[in-house]
Amino acid sequence: MSRIDGRTPDQLRPITIERNWSKHAEGSVLVSFGDTKVFCTASVTEGVPRWRKGSGEGWVTAEYSMLPRATNTRGDRESVRGKIGGRTHEISRLIGRSLRAVVDCKALGENTIVLDCDVLQADGGTRTAAITGAYVALADAIAWAQGKKLVKAGRKPLIGTVSAVSVGIVDGVPLLDLCYEEDVRAETDMNVVCTGDGRFVEVQGTAEATPFDRAELNALLDLAAAGCDQLAEIQRTALEATR
Amino acid sequence: MSRIDGRTPDQLRPITIERNWSKHAEGSVLVSFGDTKVFCTASVTEGVPRWRKGSGEGWVTAEYSMLPRATNTRGDRESVRGKIGGRTHEISRLIGRSLRAVVDCKALGENTIVLDCDVLQADGGTRTAAITGAYVALADAIAWAQGKKLVKAGRKPLIGTVSAVSVGIVDGVPLLDLCYEEDVRAETDMNVVCTGDGRFVEVQGTAEATPFDRAELNALLDLAAAGCDQLAEIQRTALEATR
Amino acid sequence: MSRIDGRTPDQLRPITIERNWSKHAEGSVLVSFGDTKVFCTASVTEGVPRWRKGSGEGWVTAEYSMLPRATNTRGDRESVRGKIGGRTHEISRLIGRSLRAVVDCKALGENTIVLDCDVLQADGGTRTAAITGAYVALADAIAWAQGKKLVKAGRKPLIGTVSAVSVGIVDGVPLLDLCYEEDVRAETDMNVVCTGDGRFVEVQGTAEATPFDRAELNALLDLAAAGCDQLAEIQRTALEATR
Amino acid sequence: MSRIDGRTPDQLRPITIERNWSKHAEGSVLVSFGDTKVFCTASVTEGVPRWRKGSGEGWVTAEYSMLPRATNTRGDRESVRGKIGGRTHEISRLIGRSLRAVVDCKALGENTIVLDCDVLQADGGTRTAAITGAYVALADAIAWAQGKKLVKAGRKPLIGTVSAVSVGIVDGVPLLDLCYEEDVRAETDMNVVCTGDGRFVEVQGTAEATPFDRAELNALLDLAAAGCDQLAEIQRTALEATR
Amino acid sequence: MSRIDGRTPDQLRPITIERNWSKHAEGSVLVSFGDTKVFCTASVTEGVPRWRKGSGEGWVTAEYSMLPRATNTRGDRESVRGKIGGRTHEISRLIGRSLRAVVDCKALGENTIVLDCDVLQADGGTRTAAITGAYVALADAIAWAQGKKLVKAGRKPLIGTVSAVSVGIVDGVPLLDLCYEEDVRAETDMNVVCTGDGRFVEVQGTAEATPFDRAELNALLDLAAAGCDQLAEIQRTALEATR
Amino acid sequence: MSRIDGRTPDQLRPITIERNWSKHAEGSVLVSFGDTKVFCTASVTEGVPRWRKGSGEGWVTAEYSMLPRATNTRGDRESVRGKIGGRTHEISRLIGRSLRAVVDCKALGENTIVLDCDVLQADGGTRTAAITGAYVALADAIAWAQGKKLVKAGRKPLIGTVSAVSVGIVDGVPLLDLCYEEDVRAETDMNVVCTGDGRFVEVQGTAEATPFDRAELNALLDLAAAGCDQLAEIQRTALEATR
Repeated sequence: MSRIDGRTPDQLRPITIERNWSKHAEGSVLVSFGDTKVFCTASVTEGVPRWRKGSGEGWVTAEYSMLPRATNTRGDRESVRGKIGGRTHEISRLIGRSLRAVVDCKALGENTIVLDCDVLQADGGTRTAAITGAYVALADAIAWAQGKKLVKAGRKPLIGTVSAVSVGIVDGVPLLDLCYEEDVRAETDMNVVCTGDGRFVEVQGTAEATPFDRAELNALLDLAAAGCDQLAEIQRTALEATR
Repeated sequence: MSRIDGRTPDQLRPITIERNWSKHAEGSVLVSFGDTKVFCTASVTEGVPRWRKGSGEGWVTAEYSMLPRATNTRGDRESVRGKIGGRTHEISRLIGRSLRAVVDCKALGENTIVLDCDVLQADGGTRTAAITGAYVALADAIAWAQGKKLVKAGRKPLIGTVSAVSVGIVDGVPLLDLCYEEDVRAETDMNVVCTGDGRFVEVQGTAEATPFDRAELNALLDLAAAGCDQLAEIQRTALEATR
Repeated sequence: MSRIDGRTPDQLRPITIERNWSKHAEGSVLVSFGDTKVFCTASVTEGVPRWRKGSGEGWVTAEYSMLPRATNTRGDRESVRGKIGGRTHEISRLIGRSLRAVVDCKALGENTIVLDCDVLQADGGTRTAAITGAYVALADAIAWAQGKKLVKAGRKPLIGTVSAVSVGIVDGVPLLDLCYEEDVRAETDMNVVCTGDGRFVEVQGTAEATPFDRAELNALLDLAAAGCDQLAEIQRTALEATR
Repeated sequence: MSRIDGRTPDQLRPITIERNWSKHAEGSVLVSFGDTKVFCTASVTEGVPRWRKGSGEGWVTAEYSMLPRATNTRGDRESVRGKIGGRTHEISRLIGRSLRAVVDCKALGENTIVLDCDVLQADGGTRTAAITGAYVALADAIAWAQGKKLVKAGRKPLIGTVSAVSVGIVDGVPLLDLCYEEDVRAETDMNVVCTGDGRFVEVQGTAEATPFDRAELNALLDLAAAGCDQLAEIQRTALEATR
Repeated sequence: MSRIDGRTPDQLRPITIERNWSKHAEGSVLVSFGDTKVFCTASVTEGVPRWRKGSGEGWVTAEYSMLPRATNTRGDRESVRGKIGGRTHEISRLIGRSLRAVVDCKALGENTIVLDCDVLQADGGTRTAAITGAYVALADAIAWAQGKKLVKAGRKPLIGTVSAVSVGIVDGVPLLDLCYEEDVRAETDMNVVCTGDGRFVEVQGTAEATPFDRAELNALLDLAAAGCDQLAEIQRTALEATR
Repeated sequence: MSRIDGRTPDQLRPITIERNWSKHAEGSVLVSFGDTKVFCTASVTEGVPRWRKGSGEGWVTAEYSMLPRATNTRGDRESVRGKIGGRTHEISRLIGRSLRAVVDCKALGENTIVLDCDVLQADGGTRTAAITGAYVALADAIAWAQGKKLVKAGRKPLIGTVSAVSVGIVDGVPLLDLCYEEDVRAETDMNVVCTGDGRFVEVQGTAEATPFDRAELNALLDLAAAGCDQLAEIQRTALEATR
């Protein structure tokens, strides 16, 4: 079986990570997974939210949003509707949790890093692209904070790497990194967030049509783990390039 | 190792499902998983939301909420704050998806069933108790709709059963059905939604502290599958009782 | 004339007050006036709202809400609509005022007690059941605060008892404690809040159809005063039971 | 005892009702009760809200609001805060109910009249001034609608007159039409809405400090009834003047 | 060509400025430009918004609003809709900027003056009437603050005068101070805010139908400058009257 | 005098207009004025807002927004705050008005075009860049609608071209196209929107510090007109390139 864009089942879309896309942010990345393009900025501020003050620990959080015309038909702006939808909330929380899994908040000290992930163009996998790109922006922001001595000398707030990919079962076949058309047709859809050393941070599998069994779950996890391995390599390459 | 409440690692808390808790709702259940108590009502209305009109298909959705003092310290009412938090949105969406997995919307016809899951007392596992109880309220509501001929004769909208349970790793040990104190201490936390025939509808695993590996994931899935088996049995017994 | 549920005009519905319904709240009561069931919790926190700081006085306030399916047809959640309706506001304010009438805020000291009154099932008289039940939850909460030494030794913040009942004129006959069907048909509807010693805290009479004259007003006040006497006795009995 | 402004206990403040204060509204009145000034407009539109369509009956509703600097210290605009406070809701509902008590909605036909009562300057009794003034604006608007044939020939939507006044007990003395300073010091505060023929539409009595007994309640009702009689006369005079 | 109300092209409508319209506000004015009537109050409070604290400088801001029936058909209240419209925001900001142009914030010291401009009746030119009237209320409020020693002796926070007028091209003819009917028909519409010494604070010209050329722009600016001269004279006369 | 970035007073920043930046939108442009980068998409939908239905005329509107980290310090998302700020509203309205000035809504027929202008990076002049870029996206969208026969054959909805530029007086010198640092220091700031044939659509001049006189106004208008001429040329070149 050949996929809609000619990929093999275990093949990622073309992935690009462009750093330093903004002159203002402490870290900024334009990440693309095929036609999905997400602009990720990392903003560092001294101090932490009220509930964390005095703890000596930092905080990392994320906000995800889609431009109104990132999709095929224009959606209402959430700022105009006056409230944030459930999906937006859910994805923002997922990104924040995923990144915090590789941050040592004690080492970060009482600093806050906010990751803004704005989807400029959507073609499936926006949350996984956001996590993968945001990690790189976060790494740049932490390096900046270290350079500015906001982080105490010798402390290493970044304790691992993290990336994410979607997998799903389409017409009975487990596929890696679904594009929008595949995503719509998937019987089961799963987002997997892995660390660079191959462990899981998040596993979110959903049966869209029919429930899935343990064998299918295992096949999807295999695919995802291999995909995240490749993404970790791409992140490393991007970060090794001179800034 | 003995658990805080004396259970073995693979033991559920005492589970009760009381039907017909409301004289108004078409289905209503007070479910308790130990000290977690959720009041689930199923409301049937003819017709479907605008975007589904004319499709011939029904709709099942859910709203989850916590009373302000369901928890140890009082939380603000979301109606007073004027907006719904991310966690509430996320759980409402999860409950709705889980129930739709066992409903044949075509057989339901253009009727809507709304499941309200209001947590009266929280002690960990509120979302899994909500799904487990809401399924029973849903079954009663569908029976009611069939009795009222809202559903065409011979149609069976309910195509399976569904329940949910939390599992997690606490001090390195995989545990079933975490209470609040265990949940807070868990290194990894997973909510699993299963059908009565043992397949998965949702798998949501999150590393709270350290990422988890494939072996841990497998151990948790084993525990959860066994727990859901028992919950399915408890649901069956509750539904077989005379109304 | 016999009433819809067989009561005499001056007869209350069966009233029950169950204390300690929550393991978290400092006071908690499930009160029922016939089929009307309200869950009242009292939450004690040290400190007072900003505008009262430094006054040495405490504060007691209330929030009333109805579960979406407490009524015969499901209502929208106010948290989902993003704003609180006029009726909800009005009743919350009434409950708060009624309870403050029997509290000596100076004796309470700078502590805040919030009464949450959530209607689980509605069949007329939800606000009067809420006040009657909330008083008991409040008494338990104050006793708790005294036990915890949040209230200075020798201070008695509770200076009386308070209960409430609805009365109305249906088909020309003054009736006590209207159920929903009577309430809908009432020409005049009145909520009366009385202290245990027979004085009035609130009198709210409304002509739904035709205005009422002074004689009718007097007949309703007589009925209400007698009803509140009985409610005060029921509250006393409930509070005398061992916790 | 002499009152702060030299009135006797049973004396109203100077009352003025100026009609036709707006060139746009179908009825408009600037009413003053001493220094309390409320601008009342009545807006007639054909048609009724969705829930009343096809009933053949009209609808009358009210919105009350205070300009930010109507009071001694500036309050936040509710439009800026993004939500309406409980007090505003409560008073808007009271005004609407009071006016509907003298309107035959069938005779009005499917027309809607909205009364806007905006407090330009507040000095106690804003809700009672609003009701008293809004009645006159309503009468003008109904006359306009009759002139425009929006109301069927021969139909009389206005079936009575209505006015309102506050009464209260200050230093143990029952007083009529409290100004702000008296209102603040009142032990008991009552708003009474009466029809022109001396019956009650609303009676809302609240113990601010100590509960009140039946004798006090009676004294207040006597005062209020006499006050509303005078207000009805003032309304009549205003309406008899050439428009 | 004669205008709809008989004015010459360069003639203002009858302008009135009544001071001391409120007993509460530190400055208050009812300004009318023909049938446009705006109630302007200036509220002085000690202290400044958080972002300005410690600067030693004061702050002047404005809020503009229209009563629901200020116009020919009733508009929804922004407090009821729960958000402020774009036009309201825009005009509030314009009024604030215009007034700040003649205030020396250093001389004002850390005090805040809020100008509330509530349109009671609208007939074109509400924002220009608001600016013109608000200036007078501001002058009174600053005089009050000087009298109360909130402003340091010898400091003069008011460094000029400011007024505003609309101009527009109707049927090819430049006209001064458009009423509503002219405004609707204008090809180009311009609001001009001038100081008393003839300089510009704001120039906002908008082509409603066809773009305008430089000659038309010049003609409009000439008209507006002359109109503002007259308004400055009217303001001066109003302020010279005994308070 | 040399400017901060070495430009002469009458020199634009480097301007780039990249078309077809989105695969979904009917028109899409990334416009940059120096470091200011705005992503403009034009979305075409059949039909018009309710208030315009049946008129036979189309509608063009715009929404402007800034990504949270478009500026030097991160701002709150308006979707998170739950309301849109005054500045955002004001600019959205300006962009919409400016584009409608060059659209024949009758020729457009009952179609709606929404221009979304999202600022990716801000360095002064975001609204003028947005208008200039949005025009090009609009032109592409109209061409698309003509190709799809949404616009009747022979109709030309686009009746001109429009661009915008900021001008201001810095240290007494009139400058064209201010960058952020200049904008902050400007005594007077003006945004001018011109058609391709040199007429004005909008002129918005604001004295930030000291009012400006007629001579200064004239100097700024001269600068702006020349700048818009150049921008019109750049737009023409961009649109002539093969799509």
